[in-house]
Amino acid sequence: MSNLIVNENRLWDDLMVTAEFGAKDGGVCRLTLGPEDKAVRDWFSGQCNALGLEMAVDEVGNMFALRKGRSDLPPIAMGSHLDTQPTGGRFDGILGVLAGLEVIRVLEDAGYVTEAPLMLVNWTNEEGSRFNPSMLGSGVYCGVHERSYADARQDEGGETFGDALEAIGYRGDRPAGSVELGAMFELHIEQGPILEAEGASIGIVQGVQGCRWYEVVLTGNSAHTGSTPMGMRQDALVAASHLVVAVQAMALAEEDAVGSVGFMEVLPNSTNVIPGVVRLNVDLRHPKDAVLDRMEASLQETVASLGVTAKITPISRTDAVEFDTECITSVRHAVSRLNMSARDIVSGAGHDAQHLAGHVPTTMIFVPSTNGLSHNPAEYTAPAECANGAQVLLEAVLDYDRRMSDPVSAP
Amino acid sequence: MSNLIVNENRLWDDLMVTAEFGAKDGGVCRLTLGPEDKAVRDWFSGQCNALGLEMAVDEVGNMFALRKGRSDLPPIAMGSHLDTQPTGGRFDGILGVLAGLEVIRVLEDAGYVTEAPLMLVNWTNEEGSRFNPSMLGSGVYCGVHERSYADARQDEGGETFGDALEAIGYRGDRPAGSVELGAMFELHIEQGPILEAEGASIGIVQGVQGCRWYEVVLTGNSAHTGSTPMGMRQDALVAASHLVVAVQAMALAEEDAVGSVGFMEVLPNSTNVIPGVVRLNVDLRHPKDAVLDRMEASLQETVASLGVTAKITPISRTDAVEFDTECITSVRHAVSRLNMSARDIVSGAGHDAQHLAGHVPTTMIFVPSTNGLSHNPAEYTAPAECANGAQVLLEAVLDYDRRMSDPVSAP
Repeated sequence: MSNLIVNENRLWDDLMVTAEFGAKDGGVCRLTLGPEDKAVRDWFSGQCNALGLEMAVDEVGNMFALRKGRSDLPPIAMGSHLDTQPTGGRFDGILGVLAGLEVIRVLEDAGYVTEAPLMLVNWTNEEGSRFNPSMLGSGVYCGVHERSYADARQDEGGETFGDALEAIGYRGDRPAGSVELGAMFELHIEQGPILEAEGASIGIVQGVQGCRWYEVVLTGNSAHTGSTPMGMRQDALVAASHLVVAVQAMALAEEDAVGSVGFMEVLPNSTNVIPGVVRLNVDLRHPKDAVLDRMEASLQETVASLGVTAKITPISRTDAVEFDTECITSVRHAVSRLNMSARDIVSGAGHDAQHLAGHVPTTMIFVPSTNGLSHNPAEYTAPAECANGAQVLLEAVLDYDRRMSDPVSAP
Repeated sequence: MSNLIVNENRLWDDLMVTAEFGAKDGGVCRLTLGPEDKAVRDWFSGQCNALGLEMAVDEVGNMFALRKGRSDLPPIAMGSHLDTQPTGGRFDGILGVLAGLEVIRVLEDAGYVTEAPLMLVNWTNEEGSRFNPSMLGSGVYCGVHERSYADARQDEGGETFGDALEAIGYRGDRPAGSVELGAMFELHIEQGPILEAEGASIGIVQGVQGCRWYEVVLTGNSAHTGSTPMGMRQDALVAASHLVVAVQAMALAEEDAVGSVGFMEVLPNSTNVIPGVVRLNVDLRHPKDAVLDRMEASLQETVASLGVTAKITPISRTDAVEFDTECITSVRHAVSRLNMSARDIVSGAGHDAQHLAGHVPTTMIFVPSTNGLSHNPAEYTAPAECANGAQVLLEAVLDYDRRMSDPVSAP
């Protein structure tokens, strides 16, 4: 067990300093590859430089700051992303990068050198709000997307990802995927209400939910609300309402499932016209793909039974991801040593770690989000909660380093 | 019983000729007081002139064409409106005016002079789609609205009703309400599916449904669809869906009731965000105000029980109208003499007759709408169906004239 303690104030100061890059309405608007993203990258690069880390940037702008270890094992990575949503908060993404920075500072201060090198990472365009899709930098790194695909993505104004990357000077010379990693630990805010509700300090993340989106178009008959008797109607909104209630019921029927209709459009949407068409999107998530298969079958059955013409089209699918058991074990060891309250949790949101999990041993650590808020200027995680996360990150990385470099004598 | 028979072809020709004033997509766009409305008014005026009728125009543009009777009793009126919805059909409104014109032509041809004078009426701005509210001309005529209120109504471009009326030269010199009427018979298309479904040629209209509109705002908690467990949600759309289903149920629970949600807005309306706010409008209608009181109470109770913050605001209320029993009796006599298939019906849509009913003995006659369609270019009523309506109008007016001018000897 280390006696290394992260500096809560130093970490909080970094969070508050970086929140000025794109500060807006108490939160942050720091869109990928914009001037604020360049500014925070430059700041990050300066901090790494001051710590003597060796910075490599790959061809899609992912930043890798290396701290040498005693051996030349593949580096253990910490990090997340520096970009935000347009109405983002001060913690989403950047906490995972700054906590890694804090871990390295603590190690520097103590003169502690790990067996494996450590790598501090900033993944480009996690949010996907300027350039769709999200998790683009880690996706190219892991071979999920081609670099040419990334380069051609356009923002609303028609500027490409490639041009924007070059404009801010972050087109690096390292081919994507050529920077070797041995493991990945991503600290992140929960972005949900579970840890706060249960009074847990740490979420030991088991994986990422599978997520399936469907577009449903229901077509009834548009008619006059006054002159069309109840028995002669084909009301698309009544059908849609039964579907919304059924989606809730099918999620409640499976442990750990969530099911939602977040988007709905009613046509013609006039008070005295029976809705003729409703378009809506269904969002189903579960940690197990097999359960999602079952929910999908139930959804298909419900949609077919609504009594109006119904068309259902899958529009997006992300399979469930299970994180690495050794990485999770190191987080459990850390939590246990620190005697922190923790619970197992599955991520409901997408993260770069999701791509990384198919590439190297990977896991995540969650800290509470006040009121479950995220993608919102009011997003908040208290200084002590952030420090808890950084401390667990430190202990987990050291535990993993010890166990992986010397599997025999490790606990 | 008269031997007077309306001329189906002449009536149909008039319908097709007038459908050219504003012809659009197979239907008609003839907005109140626009150039197409002026054109059809001029045409109508010319037809009345050719029949020797005496035209009066009042200060809100209502047109009254008088055919003298044997006595100076208050005139029995026939008519409806010449304006249409932006996506209107060829029959809504104008059928009631042209059928009245056809009735007078038949009487002229036969040299038949009624006891009471006859009055053929075109009410200004029934539709209300250019100048809100609907039924404005008849409303001012009946003292429901002031002339100054009508004059100040603005269209989307900011032009006032008063200016538009003067621009087309239809500001008449007769004070609104000064043109005396003794009764009103309005023939109209049903704008619903009931007559067609039952194979009835004629709807004997008993009155107009009361109609109440409510705005409901449901406020839950907007949150991430992936990271918010089912048990920790306040989903405004799930609440709204229960309400939509409940509105349907409360209408099904009362005979002759209809209840609908035609307008719904979901916020923020994003696939991966649990809806935080839903705004919707509820439309309840029934021929009896007492039943509407009961439905309103049930609605209030349901809204209060949805488990999210709920606010309900009445936004519109029209009390139920019962038509005049003597006028209805004359329609029954006509249908019976003509041996036509007919059924009692209550109007689900609003009509000028609704205002008139508070002013003079009034009723309406409905003819079928193919597929129940109205406010739609595909609106259709076949030539024979239109002629049936005109024939019933003729017989009913003559029956009413006989009975009212000589109550003792009438059947």
